[in-house]
Amino acid sequence: MENSNSTKEEQNFRVRKLELSDKSKGFIELLQQLTVFDSVSDKEFEDRFKEISMYGDDHLVCVIEDDFSGKIVATGSVFIEKKFIRNCGKVGHIEDVVVDGNVRGMQLGKKIVGFLADHARSMGCYKVILDCSVDNNVFYEKCGFKQKEIQMVKYFV
Amino acid sequence: MENSNSTKEEQNFRVRKLELSDKSKGFIELLQQLTVFDSVSDKEFEDRFKEISMYGDDHLVCVIEDDFSGKIVATGSVFIEKKFIRNCGKVGHIEDVVVDGNVRGMQLGKKIVGFLADHARSMGCYKVILDCSVDNNVFYEKCGFKQKEIQMVKYFV
Repeated sequence: MENSNSTKEEQNFRVRKLELSDKSKGFIELLQQLTVFDSVSDKEFEDRFKEISMYGDDHLVCVIEDDFSGKIVATGSVFIEKKFIRNCGKVGHIEDVVVDGNVRGMQLGKKIVGFLADHARSMGCYKVILDCSVDNNVFYEKCGFKQKEIQMVKYFV
Repeated sequence: MENSNSTKEEQNFRVRKLELSDKSKGFIELLQQLTVFDSVSDKEFEDRFKEISMYGDDHLVCVIEDDFSGKIVATGSVFIEKKFIRNCGKVGHIEDVVVDGNVRGMQLGKKIVGFLADHARSMGCYKVILDCSVDNNVFYEKCGFKQKEIQMVKYFV
């Protein structure tokens, strides 16, 4: 007899592209675990979704849906920057990776980051980069990343 | 009577958008001061220029041309990332800032970074970020930036 835990671990946590209907599945609430912000209207979500979709494969937002709860439990994004350096090379930028606090320890973060890095590689990028807190260094090392530079920021608001 | 130095300092080092003709003005050679890579054919340059131009104001490459020599002596780029977090906020990413080694000390780097940050602000970004080596920390602090996170990288080639 299975307990609920083993059942959950046997679930196929498939990574897929963000869909418009994911807003009603807790996508925004999941992002609010990453940083504090007000809720987003359906119109705002749809407009931003369409703006990002215009970039095609150059800006990908992916999610993992929990088939049992019907909730989005993990997400992350990557966009492809087109450069002149490195013989007109491309670089993938991973952003906004978050896993629901209730499903930690199931390697979903690693799955998301792997999916995004694979996408960058398949798009012809020579590298993929991301910025993170010092605390998340170990996690990203497990995902095959190495620390390189420092991030500088200037806030407008 | 002016000496060549004071004349140079009085020049109007105007920041403007990259133009197709800048390839023949040493734009690629300038970027090669940033990182080692082979030369780029006119066709490759034109194709990449057009790809970037398709993003309109969402991806801006700027340059400073030395009116005396007709050479491009400084450049930098910024692209606008569209997010769902921060109420569908936007973030500017500054990349590939380089000043010709022969015209250092004339604040051209600061001019380029200021131009790119102003662009990000005018596009409605709530912040602008960049990655740099620890050595360049002081320069970017003078440009109004503060150190925040660390950059992680995964190379494919």
